[in-house]
Amino acid sequence: MKRPRVWKMLMAAMCVALLSGLQAQDLPRQVSIILLGATGDLARKYLWQGLFHLYLEEVGKGHHFRFHGTALTSTEQGQEVIAKVLESLSCPGDMASGHCAELKAQFQQLSEYRRLKTPEDYLALSKDIEAQVEHEGLRETGRIFYLSVPPFAYVDIARSINSSCRPGPGAWLRVVLEKPFGHDLHSAQQLATELGSFFQEEEMYRVDHYLGKQVVAQILPFRDQNRAALDGLWNRHHVERVEIVMKETLDAEGRTSFYEEYGVIRDVLQNHLTEVLTLVAMELPVNVSSPESVLQHKLQAFQALRSLQRHSAVLGQYQAYSGQVRRELQKPDSFHSLTPTFAGILVHIDNLRWEGVPFILMSGKALDERVSYVRILFKNQAFCVQSEKHWVAAQSRCLPRQIIFYIGHGELGSPAVLVSRNLFQPALPSASWKEVEGRPGLHLFGLPLSDYYAYSPVREQDAYSLLISHIFHCRKDSFVTTENLLASWVFWTPLLDSLAHEVPRFYPGEAENGQLLDFEFSGGHLSFSQPLLEQLVPGPDSAPLPSDFQVLRAKYRESPLISAWPEELIARLAGDIEAAAVRAVRRFGKFHLALSGGSSPVALFQQLATGHYSFPWAHTHLWLVDERCVPLWDPESNFQGLQTHLLQHVRVPHYNVHPMPVHWRQRLCAEEDQGAQAYAEEISALVTNGSSTWCCWAWELTGTRPPSSAVARRPGRRAAGSADHEPSSPRRMSLSLPLINRARKVAVLVMGRMKREIAMLVSVGHDPKWPISGVLRTLASSCGTWIMMRFWGDGTLALCSPLCFPSFALSLPSQSCPLPMRAFLSGI
Amino acid sequence: MKRPRVWKMLMAAMCVALLSGLQAQDLPRQVSIILLGATGDLARKYLWQGLFHLYLEEVGKGHHFRFHGTALTSTEQGQEVIAKVLESLSCPGDMASGHCAELKAQFQQLSEYRRLKTPEDYLALSKDIEAQVEHEGLRETGRIFYLSVPPFAYVDIARSINSSCRPGPGAWLRVVLEKPFGHDLHSAQQLATELGSFFQEEEMYRVDHYLGKQVVAQILPFRDQNRAALDGLWNRHHVERVEIVMKETLDAEGRTSFYEEYGVIRDVLQNHLTEVLTLVAMELPVNVSSPESVLQHKLQAFQALRSLQRHSAVLGQYQAYSGQVRRELQKPDSFHSLTPTFAGILVHIDNLRWEGVPFILMSGKALDERVSYVRILFKNQAFCVQSEKHWVAAQSRCLPRQIIFYIGHGELGSPAVLVSRNLFQPALPSASWKEVEGRPGLHLFGLPLSDYYAYSPVREQDAYSLLISHIFHCRKDSFVTTENLLASWVFWTPLLDSLAHEVPRFYPGEAENGQLLDFEFSGGHLSFSQPLLEQLVPGPDSAPLPSDFQVLRAKYRESPLISAWPEELIARLAGDIEAAAVRAVRRFGKFHLALSGGSSPVALFQQLATGHYSFPWAHTHLWLVDERCVPLWDPESNFQGLQTHLLQHVRVPHYNVHPMPVHWRQRLCAEEDQGAQAYAEEISALVTNGSSTWCCWAWELTGTRPPSSAVARRPGRRAAGSADHEPSSPRRMSLSLPLINRARKVAVLVMGRMKREIAMLVSVGHDPKWPISGVLRTLASSCGTWIMMRFWGDGTLALCSPLCFPSFALSLPSQSCPLPMRAFLSGI
Repeated sequence: MKRPRVWKMLMAAMCVALLSGLQAQDLPRQVSIILLGATGDLARKYLWQGLFHLYLEEVGKGHHFRFHGTALTSTEQGQEVIAKVLESLSCPGDMASGHCAELKAQFQQLSEYRRLKTPEDYLALSKDIEAQVEHEGLRETGRIFYLSVPPFAYVDIARSINSSCRPGPGAWLRVVLEKPFGHDLHSAQQLATELGSFFQEEEMYRVDHYLGKQVVAQILPFRDQNRAALDGLWNRHHVERVEIVMKETLDAEGRTSFYEEYGVIRDVLQNHLTEVLTLVAMELPVNVSSPESVLQHKLQAFQALRSLQRHSAVLGQYQAYSGQVRRELQKPDSFHSLTPTFAGILVHIDNLRWEGVPFILMSGKALDERVSYVRILFKNQAFCVQSEKHWVAAQSRCLPRQIIFYIGHGELGSPAVLVSRNLFQPALPSASWKEVEGRPGLHLFGLPLSDYYAYSPVREQDAYSLLISHIFHCRKDSFVTTENLLASWVFWTPLLDSLAHEVPRFYPGEAENGQLLDFEFSGGHLSFSQPLLEQLVPGPDSAPLPSDFQVLRAKYRESPLISAWPEELIARLAGDIEAAAVRAVRRFGKFHLALSGGSSPVALFQQLATGHYSFPWAHTHLWLVDERCVPLWDPESNFQGLQTHLLQHVRVPHYNVHPMPVHWRQRLCAEEDQGAQAYAEEISALVTNGSSTWCCWAWELTGTRPPSSAVARRPGRRAAGSADHEPSSPRRMSLSLPLINRARKVAVLVMGRMKREIAMLVSVGHDPKWPISGVLRTLASSCGTWIMMRFWGDGTLALCSPLCFPSFALSLPSQSCPLPMRAFLSGI
Repeated sequence: MKRPRVWKMLMAAMCVALLSGLQAQDLPRQVSIILLGATGDLARKYLWQGLFHLYLEEVGKGHHFRFHGTALTSTEQGQEVIAKVLESLSCPGDMASGHCAELKAQFQQLSEYRRLKTPEDYLALSKDIEAQVEHEGLRETGRIFYLSVPPFAYVDIARSINSSCRPGPGAWLRVVLEKPFGHDLHSAQQLATELGSFFQEEEMYRVDHYLGKQVVAQILPFRDQNRAALDGLWNRHHVERVEIVMKETLDAEGRTSFYEEYGVIRDVLQNHLTEVLTLVAMELPVNVSSPESVLQHKLQAFQALRSLQRHSAVLGQYQAYSGQVRRELQKPDSFHSLTPTFAGILVHIDNLRWEGVPFILMSGKALDERVSYVRILFKNQAFCVQSEKHWVAAQSRCLPRQIIFYIGHGELGSPAVLVSRNLFQPALPSASWKEVEGRPGLHLFGLPLSDYYAYSPVREQDAYSLLISHIFHCRKDSFVTTENLLASWVFWTPLLDSLAHEVPRFYPGEAENGQLLDFEFSGGHLSFSQPLLEQLVPGPDSAPLPSDFQVLRAKYRESPLISAWPEELIARLAGDIEAAAVRAVRRFGKFHLALSGGSSPVALFQQLATGHYSFPWAHTHLWLVDERCVPLWDPESNFQGLQTHLLQHVRVPHYNVHPMPVHWRQRLCAEEDQGAQAYAEEISALVTNGSSTWCCWAWELTGTRPPSSAVARRPGRRAAGSADHEPSSPRRMSLSLPLINRARKVAVLVMGRMKREIAMLVSVGHDPKWPISGVLRTLASSCGTWIMMRFWGDGTLALCSPLCFPSFALSLPSQSCPLPMRAFLSGI
């Protein structure tokens, strides 16, 4: 076990540094470990055994130990429970039983139970430790408080430790916390702030027990020890997908009071699977044995995660769940839970290493088997010339090539690292990992076990034993820092919010699930593979279902307003723009498209970026309709939105992109730069070159935001492409209406919550409060105009020239307008 | 057979249009078909049968026919051969034998042999046709000349047809040509020009018999009839790869005089497989029955093909080949042929539909089976939640999904269209396609036949019969137009040139090949999967092998010049830039990189684009060192090279890219625009902001080109970032030396054929003829300088600060320069 030894030396060096003030003294050192909640489930099952394991590992290496089990239970009751637990402790299989008994007796002698409830109890404990240390002629090195208690108790305990139970100067304090660490970003931040007022960051050890699982703990060392083989493989050119999976057969029965509040994403994905994700995805530090370096790279991995959307997830709930909740939480028969017990999530990582590689996170209860694994499937980039029947399994590059970190259970039944034999022979430390014995007939992930190099731990070790050892050795990278915790919640919270009212798909459980839960991704969207024709249980009122949408009894200029889905309208608008672009490029060699920014056109940008393969981007010029007087890289800049959602995904030549010169010579819309003037000239030079181009302007009318917004009150639109200079309002540069009207086609996107006001505005006519009303008046009388209004998330109002439905995508003539306008409105 | 009927109607309409001048007359119409080379192999095997098939199809539909078999053979001999061929013609299986005999007798009567050699013979033929037509009271509608003759005879025949055998006014002429159509772009162009002086483009029908194969001819109709299912699938988001394969078991024995000149790429890939490639890759026209539209879209597909590089191919030659050539062509024993008999090619298509999808073209002789197919393999984008053993083969989205156009032979033994049942049920015209019968035990492409929807033609038809019918019906899209032919040669010729001296891998042939020919791709490069440790036969003198490179006995400033590979040096330079970028971004939040253009840094750009996953592009600013006074979209623009080879592949925000303002306000380097001044100011504003950034300039010294070049004579470098205005020389805008020297690191790339001159220059010192010598003098005395010189294709001279080897990639300090300079030179 070469590498771990090196690590320990380094860690020891680090710990020594912390103690340097005391090294002059030569007294034997003592560490006190206080286990809070010592009589609870977790403590009885794992933590006492972990402490005993630490003792076995460290005894005789220079430290004395004392173990204090504490709880709220009375001393007598507690002592009884602890005595039983201590009696049941076991030694590693390879230890002689006599030696084991001796060490166990020592450990029992060093362990005591005490009630720990009031601040006075903490003070008393502290005094007792000091007295004992002094009495035995030792020097106190540090105290570990292991909080195996519910999170609501954290703050009180933390306060008491901080005020009454810190060790004396020169000795360290480590406080170990068990999840959950909050329920969302806000609560996690709150808890972190509270804990931060009592402890330094380096004093806190947040446990995610997955980081203590032997295979998970091996991911980084594996990547490090196989750098030569993996360097060229561990990237988007070679990895087809990564699956991070934890399947359970058990359901939530008996735990619904906890589960109902958390659900599978908070219970498993936000913590365990996310930790594993970062270990796989992060850039590999030069020195993987430096906890700082590992933690820093992990944090960078979080920063590269693409934000999750509602469509990044599929949710399920086993059918018996709601009944269990009703029984256990005394809910009425009408109660239906929306808590997901199954989730599939598609994660994308926006960096050059992983761009485009799907990371699939999946976990669920009541599934067909219990198994956890990370599977890295490599692309098949080989072409095998011989007919398939001649392929040699363990050599052919055309058969699946994969690396599997088999965390546990499943058909293999033990943790293991598997590498396809047609990939490479991995290096694993031979002292701690041994080859898995042959199991004829066993197939894993499409290949017989014999097609893998397969290694499992020489000695299986419990996650908590490993973590307790890492706490003692300051291995902070096995724990969740505040920064990493909050980064994880920053990533998950928006998804959790957007899914709050999502109705999960119901599944019968275990093998009966069939293909019901299979899901697939297309672009960035996940969906179940099997469509469901009917919802088994109707959603709550707040979750709109298709049938909830109705035709509104309303009219726009004599035409009925009827319903349509936002997606459909966006698709048609994008199709229309593409058709215009193709025609323009065929006829004139180029196409000019002016777009506005803000959040409304994002869906349009995404549609154009992913759904239109024949769009002649190489011959398209992009202009801005409207820009804020901020640097182009400002998140508020309209250009920034265009860049993120469109330019990053298509190939428009740099010189065909024309941001507004709002930041010329590093000055914002300075009068003397005449930026607006220059932009107008540039348009004149390139666009109205004879009649050689078509233009199509998509326009977001921010002025239709609720009038309470500053932007709406002072939309700053001036008549001739000039900037608004009133210092109190956000300044802008905008195209003038005459310029816009030179376009061959205009589309208007309107966003706002206030559909009633907008509908009114549309029917009433010009109102200076709403710049759009003036524009509508101008545009509505022309042809080839596409007006679309979208309400925040809950429907679409689209006004459209009659020729665009239904043959809209094919032709939208600009000469004549024979039919009366019709308009479409969807609402709920 | 619904669709073909529609086509025929459309085609007929088109042909009618051509004949409109004659429609007033009401005489019965006659078409004469003259088959040149009528006694040759191809004619005897396929063409007469095709003509008979045409007759059977068209008899009684309004046309009279006459068939003239011609050759150089004497009349008597020719008549004898033709009589035999006509006797052996067969009718379709479903025709009554009596009816068949009757029609065959008619056909025999309408067919004659005549010798056609001199211009007088052609004139006589023409006269005879006219006389016969008049005699029979017919009107001549058109003449088809089918040239089944070697290409060297084309021009003479074409001249004779044009001068002596054109039909009279109002009747059409169609000339059918058989490949090869040239040997490379030059010869194809020459032949096309010659033919073009005799015939109009619409008169020429170049045959690629693959386009007549039933399955190949079905590709576009299939795409059209299954638009609904394919629309979302036929793109880079869903297609994993496309394989276009023609495997043969036969070798070239008996044909080596032809084969030795052509090889597998010219024989199969440039024509057959390329035609199939365009049918799969092209945008689908709205109207697939419009030949113009199909041909135009096909041409567009050619334009999107990424240029092939030497590394886009792997070549092989079956071991017996050279012996066969020696025997058949009387070569000496020492003769070794380099002609490939096997090739695998990786094609990439640079459009939004196909970007990143590998198209693999493969063909070879003496392989393990005879089979031709196109396989479109779809990505597995599903995650199946249940354990694999529960998957249902024909439903699970996790099992392979593919469409196979099975052109012929192979284990299936007949042409077929196969679609995985877990994909969709395809629509095929039921009159002409029937479901393939079950064949238990037959596996194709990893799946049992029963997992496919499989259709084969109701009646198998020979390619030539189909093509002859298409000639008669003006189906130009089944033939190779001049434009498409030249586009194909434009695509293939550079590869053929670059492979001219490549030593192919030798393979034993058939099943013995094992995995020897398997190949794989990484980035854009193909290579054999199995490395070969030794070359079986040494290459000719002109093909340098690694061992040919030697250490030069030369010195640079007291240090030896030693050899290194260009790839290695480029990789190190890229690694150094990345390391600097990472450090700069960590420290200052941004990194500035100034690059020059031209062809020299292309390899560096490509390395940076594909090999450096942690490069902080989002925080990198890109500047130009030097630019020509041309618009940025000019191919000569340095910026254009940067765009194509780097910007298209990485995500640098638009506003971090700083092209030189050589084309401000649509004017080129106008004095009054003070572009150079503005650029210098922009640099000052962004780069020298305190000392908060690092810079690294890579600099190509075009001034080191051979002095015969205009650029070298007047490199136009001025002292302070200003433009050179001498009207006679290409004007430029360049950074001044003081600006360059403000960079923290400088790399110099020098390209040129004349290594002797450069080596001299480096050792001699400053020479005003070579601007680089001045720069080298300045830089060589500083530290952190990377100087690299690369010779066109034949080696590398690299001068490098001592600190960069061997720990170069990790640290290149800028403070001190303790060791003497060392330099590296590779040469041959």
